[in-house]
Amino acid sequence: MPSAGELSYQSPPPEDDGIGNNTNGTDEDSGWLWLQIKAEARRDAESEPALASYLYSTILSHSSLERSLSFHLGNKLCSSTLLSTLLYDLFLNAFSTDPSIRAATVADLRAARTRDPACVSFSHCLLNYKGFLACQAHRVSHKLWNQSRKPLALALHSRIADVFAVDIHPAAKIGKGILFDHATGMVVGETAVIGNNVSILHHVTLGGTGKVGGDRHPKIGDGVLIGAGATILGNIKIGEGAKIGAGSVVLIEVPPRTTAVGNPARLVGGKEKPSQHEDVPGESMDHTSFISEWSDYII
Amino acid sequence: MPSAGELSYQSPPPEDDGIGNNTNGTDEDSGWLWLQIKAEARRDAESEPALASYLYSTILSHSSLERSLSFHLGNKLCSSTLLSTLLYDLFLNAFSTDPSIRAATVADLRAARTRDPACVSFSHCLLNYKGFLACQAHRVSHKLWNQSRKPLALALHSRIADVFAVDIHPAAKIGKGILFDHATGMVVGETAVIGNNVSILHHVTLGGTGKVGGDRHPKIGDGVLIGAGATILGNIKIGEGAKIGAGSVVLIEVPPRTTAVGNPARLVGGKEKPSQHEDVPGESMDHTSFISEWSDYII
Amino acid sequence: MPSAGELSYQSPPPEDDGIGNNTNGTDEDSGWLWLQIKAEARRDAESEPALASYLYSTILSHSSLERSLSFHLGNKLCSSTLLSTLLYDLFLNAFSTDPSIRAATVADLRAARTRDPACVSFSHCLLNYKGFLACQAHRVSHKLWNQSRKPLALALHSRIADVFAVDIHPAAKIGKGILFDHATGMVVGETAVIGNNVSILHHVTLGGTGKVGGDRHPKIGDGVLIGAGATILGNIKIGEGAKIGAGSVVLIEVPPRTTAVGNPARLVGGKEKPSQHEDVPGESMDHTSFISEWSDYII
Amino acid sequence: MPSAGELSYQSPPPEDDGIGNNTNGTDEDSGWLWLQIKAEARRDAESEPALASYLYSTILSHSSLERSLSFHLGNKLCSSTLLSTLLYDLFLNAFSTDPSIRAATVADLRAARTRDPACVSFSHCLLNYKGFLACQAHRVSHKLWNQSRKPLALALHSRIADVFAVDIHPAAKIGKGILFDHATGMVVGETAVIGNNVSILHHVTLGGTGKVGGDRHPKIGDGVLIGAGATILGNIKIGEGAKIGAGSVVLIEVPPRTTAVGNPARLVGGKEKPSQHEDVPGESMDHTSFISEWSDYII
Amino acid sequence: MPSAGELSYQSPPPEDDGIGNNTNGTDEDSGWLWLQIKAEARRDAESEPALASYLYSTILSHSSLERSLSFHLGNKLCSSTLLSTLLYDLFLNAFSTDPSIRAATVADLRAARTRDPACVSFSHCLLNYKGFLACQAHRVSHKLWNQSRKPLALALHSRIADVFAVDIHPAAKIGKGILFDHATGMVVGETAVIGNNVSILHHVTLGGTGKVGGDRHPKIGDGVLIGAGATILGNIKIGEGAKIGAGSVVLIEVPPRTTAVGNPARLVGGKEKPSQHEDVPGESMDHTSFISEWSDYII
Amino acid sequence: MPSAGELSYQSPPPEDDGIGNNTNGTDEDSGWLWLQIKAEARRDAESEPALASYLYSTILSHSSLERSLSFHLGNKLCSSTLLSTLLYDLFLNAFSTDPSIRAATVADLRAARTRDPACVSFSHCLLNYKGFLACQAHRVSHKLWNQSRKPLALALHSRIADVFAVDIHPAAKIGKGILFDHATGMVVGETAVIGNNVSILHHVTLGGTGKVGGDRHPKIGDGVLIGAGATILGNIKIGEGAKIGAGSVVLIEVPPRTTAVGNPARLVGGKEKPSQHEDVPGESMDHTSFISEWSDYII
Repeated sequence: MPSAGELSYQSPPPEDDGIGNNTNGTDEDSGWLWLQIKAEARRDAESEPALASYLYSTILSHSSLERSLSFHLGNKLCSSTLLSTLLYDLFLNAFSTDPSIRAATVADLRAARTRDPACVSFSHCLLNYKGFLACQAHRVSHKLWNQSRKPLALALHSRIADVFAVDIHPAAKIGKGILFDHATGMVVGETAVIGNNVSILHHVTLGGTGKVGGDRHPKIGDGVLIGAGATILGNIKIGEGAKIGAGSVVLIEVPPRTTAVGNPARLVGGKEKPSQHEDVPGESMDHTSFISEWSDYII
Repeated sequence: MPSAGELSYQSPPPEDDGIGNNTNGTDEDSGWLWLQIKAEARRDAESEPALASYLYSTILSHSSLERSLSFHLGNKLCSSTLLSTLLYDLFLNAFSTDPSIRAATVADLRAARTRDPACVSFSHCLLNYKGFLACQAHRVSHKLWNQSRKPLALALHSRIADVFAVDIHPAAKIGKGILFDHATGMVVGETAVIGNNVSILHHVTLGGTGKVGGDRHPKIGDGVLIGAGATILGNIKIGEGAKIGAGSVVLIEVPPRTTAVGNPARLVGGKEKPSQHEDVPGESMDHTSFISEWSDYII
Repeated sequence: MPSAGELSYQSPPPEDDGIGNNTNGTDEDSGWLWLQIKAEARRDAESEPALASYLYSTILSHSSLERSLSFHLGNKLCSSTLLSTLLYDLFLNAFSTDPSIRAATVADLRAARTRDPACVSFSHCLLNYKGFLACQAHRVSHKLWNQSRKPLALALHSRIADVFAVDIHPAAKIGKGILFDHATGMVVGETAVIGNNVSILHHVTLGGTGKVGGDRHPKIGDGVLIGAGATILGNIKIGEGAKIGAGSVVLIEVPPRTTAVGNPARLVGGKEKPSQHEDVPGESMDHTSFISEWSDYII
Repeated sequence: MPSAGELSYQSPPPEDDGIGNNTNGTDEDSGWLWLQIKAEARRDAESEPALASYLYSTILSHSSLERSLSFHLGNKLCSSTLLSTLLYDLFLNAFSTDPSIRAATVADLRAARTRDPACVSFSHCLLNYKGFLACQAHRVSHKLWNQSRKPLALALHSRIADVFAVDIHPAAKIGKGILFDHATGMVVGETAVIGNNVSILHHVTLGGTGKVGGDRHPKIGDGVLIGAGATILGNIKIGEGAKIGAGSVVLIEVPPRTTAVGNPARLVGGKEKPSQHEDVPGESMDHTSFISEWSDYII
Repeated sequence: MPSAGELSYQSPPPEDDGIGNNTNGTDEDSGWLWLQIKAEARRDAESEPALASYLYSTILSHSSLERSLSFHLGNKLCSSTLLSTLLYDLFLNAFSTDPSIRAATVADLRAARTRDPACVSFSHCLLNYKGFLACQAHRVSHKLWNQSRKPLALALHSRIADVFAVDIHPAAKIGKGILFDHATGMVVGETAVIGNNVSILHHVTLGGTGKVGGDRHPKIGDGVLIGAGATILGNIKIGEGAKIGAGSVVLIEVPPRTTAVGNPARLVGGKEKPSQHEDVPGESMDHTSFISEWSDYII
Repeated sequence: MPSAGELSYQSPPPEDDGIGNNTNGTDEDSGWLWLQIKAEARRDAESEPALASYLYSTILSHSSLERSLSFHLGNKLCSSTLLSTLLYDLFLNAFSTDPSIRAATVADLRAARTRDPACVSFSHCLLNYKGFLACQAHRVSHKLWNQSRKPLALALHSRIADVFAVDIHPAAKIGKGILFDHATGMVVGETAVIGNNVSILHHVTLGGTGKVGGDRHPKIGDGVLIGAGATILGNIKIGEGAKIGAGSVVLIEVPPRTTAVGNPARLVGGKEKPSQHEDVPGESMDHTSFISEWSDYII
């Protein structure tokens, strides 16, 4: 165990020991992660007394990740008309009774830690990542929606949109191992679906086609990476492992493991025989390797 | 009257009876709408006790739409240095004394309910739509601006920008029947004008041309639809019923009932003889019908 | 001294007397500015009793710009788990002990007042500009980061991102004379560098290239202007005095005093011999003069 | 008019000019008093910038005494479950529609200013006297009680008891020209009646006789003075102009203009022929003149 | 069942049907009471929309008396440094796991409803009686004290003393069926013991004898009634069913079913052969029947 | 050092080592005490994670006793119109610049720890004793009063009276080594003086004689003990080392080292030759030793 807490901000521990190799989101895994989070918070509380009160109230005074997260979300999302105690109860009830949400939360924490080099610790993500927090709160509003508690789901949705500037319709389906990086300005529509191990940057829109109801939003496959400011509109499929360039406006289907870029977005390598990549961009987070090819293609 | 409140989230009542056919924003109309909102809130309070306190404080305890909205905005926009009671007074005074704001508010509620398939009820819009709330608060800051109470107008502007991430200069002129959908990230400059029955998605900028003052922001005609992330810069005219594609960067005038897309935006059908559509896009909300034509044009 | 406070919103005083010609950010300069801010606030408090309480608590009750700003930021950024008194102490300590932050704050106030025609007074910027406030709060989180107080820097970073929707990594280096106009949605990555006298509009991303750590974000030279919604990715250099068009997606180096536009961005005038401008766009704020040339180039 | 604001704390202006000789609580009188209060607050705001924000929010930003008092009580008595905006509305409605409450408030302000040498100004009483504030809030809860809005009256009663430690049952009838000096710990039961121009010190109980309902609390005549800590129990009459010594436990009727002291309280001068005084103790506030006589009587 | 909610404030239902005859504090009893409380709150919410939000948040949104009380106490006792969510958790945990506290709470509600003619409903007591609320919060601080969680018990003690002005040391032992009427100013020392079915008025002190630790506070027997402002000092026994007159200063043992009055308190009827009463004063609440006898005795 | 934190609540360390023998309130003394307080808080934070956040925010994050106390008082006394940051600044400024206040605070902490067997630690007093906190806040309001900042002194006075139910006029002079035990309901008038090493229980009044200004309140000598509920009225002298029995109503001078009891209070031993005690009752806290003698005297 390193003596200098400082160092760990420079060099995140390698995945196989520092982060653990059990990534299937089981409850044992959750227990390991919670111990890790408490250890991080304890180290930070010791090195920074000015933050210790915050770390104790949000993490160190709690007996489980669910309680910590429920407390934190309850206090972040409350307002003068939706009290923190009500929200705390709501979150705790959802997290405690739904193992699939718990597993998704754990996978999301790992996703941030593994994919974002600016994520210095699990506790950093738990406390400070608005994309992570908005996503977990969405998981609860989604559960309420599915239980036909729609007015409550929508009220929660509204608080998430106000507080985090992240606007995910409660009906939208989201997988696990999700990284919403920076997250500000994200909009995800009612019939959108996001697969597992997807990474989405800020200002991304998964939008509809107009005023007609029904299935009208994008379906994002597993392992997709969507760059900052991309706008994807309509009930179109972004295939598994595809990559959407920053600032793209996507109105077409994107086949698996291909890259779409530009406004309007076109497939890199051409519509007929688009280039295919080997990696999973949602995990490798390679935003820019297509540049030279793109330039070639476009100019 | 349907017994299953649940259903009404699926199927919004047809415009001619469930929503009423009197849409001219008169006070009778406002009265009808207020009764409808209270009925919705009462139904939701009964089905969801956890939300009942919220619904009573925001809607059911009030005697009019103006009071409800003033309360809600006062509590949403207040801060430790701008107390809710002060803001409540300010809003109530503006709404009570200005029938044109009241009419615009009613028309905006109808616009959301009619155009946005995700808007399940009027009360849903009143309570949860940050675009709607930011727009109504802007109407008050605009009134203050016109009364030469500029420091107060700007302080209110700042609170709207902080709380809703919607940044509309108090001097900007906005018509009625407006839908700011999702709304996060909208920026509307000082000399911008927005006509009636306009729909604008999130991240849209109606920006200026630089540091020189004077009339320097876009003028948006009636019935215009502006897609997500569009940036329109300078004192240019977006003609009545025009459509701006998502992600477009518009630096040119756009004639009535034509469509501009791309970065930089060009007219679909060509500069010389742009295609014209029949519908009013600000109301029909058709975001994507131009796709095939666009592709033809560009590629 | 003008008798009509009203007028001063129309006609900002000329730079040489109303704003002062000593712009080097010394403490004398800061003193002059503080007197000016108090005079503005006093005038506004007199003309608008409803705002007087706000103006006294934020400005008129304080003995210095540092105290006023510390109070204002402490109350804006506090939460139920990070109390205003703690943040106030933190800000006051940083501002009081670091003359370079004080000088930068003064230069930023002047930048907003000079470059933004909608900025009617210094106090308007101090109280209401979320870009200004986020930038000053960042200066403190950056100082904490450099003092190896990283958990505290990141907690502050998170509050800035929540409250202002402005997400600047504490490690990012920012010069002085900065205008973050509108600011909502800005994202600035860990290894980004922003020079002096830069103007950046809202929704701008200075992003990284992927999951690999190290130096991976843009370097923005002095005097650069970046238009709304631009996305700049990777460790690339935007040369001194360059201009980035609104909505551009920049993946290439941009030489000094040239203009890059489009998605993907290309240099106006062509890659080989790009057009060069004479002015300093970060100060002149000319967003659109390249339009005709751009159109010629692209179409 | 004295130039030194300071002095006025030493020497309250004589009743005939500084305080005005029109004490009948008409609306003109109320207008005069409100101007006086604003003048005091303005003087204090100028001499003490640290308090100016408080004085503007509570007094100087308001257009009438009713609005100022409604704001102040709304913010003092609100809780996380009874919002300030709701209470503000409630108070403002009551004060605006009931001239008799307004007249009583004015008379109470005058009573404090005239009778309490520690009361340095009307604004001092309006802002800081918990007895005054509790009494005005009681006037509103009493009005609600009489309108059969009992649950609301009792909720308000509870807030007054929590915040000011003054417990007056909403049904208790209270006259005008009342001074509740210090006030902490006062308890006034359901069927108690307090006449006009009464002065009551802290810790005084006007209590009942037990568990049987009905008329069971004291009736206090006009001009009575009740010393600190006195306990008066049962449906007994304290005659007009009577005086109750501090710490007395009164279980007997007290004839007009006599003095009761001790535990149990007896009449000074003896039951058969009690001493009578000429002054109105509720106004002259003479707490101790009976001492020598008392000693004679008791020992 | 009466149709007019109004009436029930005048005439509390007779004990045998309106309040139920099962008063042994079992969980079934608690269930009956909870249904009653909800029915009362529902009736009040319907008749008074302005209070409905409060009633839903405090009572109607909760699934049990424990949750309702935990919510209410958490929100009443919280401060900026002891958050409502923490307190809510603490209370809910104590109430949920300790049936003896639950039974005592139920018995206390019944005591208020039966003995205090001003108590118009169970919900009135639950929401508004500071003596009841302070007593329930004390039960939790006492439990913490017994679990050797003394710092937490003392912090809670301090909040109760601040908010309700009721100061009961966490170590003090309190029975069930307790009525602390009005309650403001009560002080109960560390080694005090209060039996079952005791009624204590406001300003009562059960105090110690000095700076020496150990068993030094009064022991109050079952069924005792202590009048307002009484001070009982030292490790003395107030026998079962005894009565202490208002304002008494008691330094002597008081035998069962006798009455002590005066300062210093003496037994009515004389030390040698004090008068004995038949009723249980803690339940009959007869404060004043001893008056004539007392007068005879003293004078 | 004891391993069981638990024990220290039972047996406070003897004065000569556990509490230190340097009691002259110098800054070295203050330093020793502050270390002790931090050690206590650290022990409690470790044993009780639920309280750790509170202990860090109030004590452990601060660098000095002055900062800790300023933070704690600022957060306790703030309101929606008097913000915590303003009060924090006010307190910190007063404590930092006035060594005599600092010395008095230290002496008061020692007084509570030594004289009150229920005071288990210095931090317990610092955090939880409303008498201690009210007294320290009074010291600051008194300083403001002496600086002719009377409106601010009175506003602070009002907050202390609301929050702690302790009402001490800012002009009252209070010595050091003061214990206000329980404190609820204390009232101390404008011209009252309290010497050093005085102990005063709750509900004690040092009141005036009526409506005439000037010197009209009691003067309490060094080492006096005043029992609960005593009322002392008029400009009379309570001699050094005197003792006032609980519930007494004192209207006569009390010579040094004598005891006054009863209502009205008389000297134990008789007016002519009152009994004298040897101890200093303000320090020995012997409330009841006079009982037998009193009984003899009175009956």
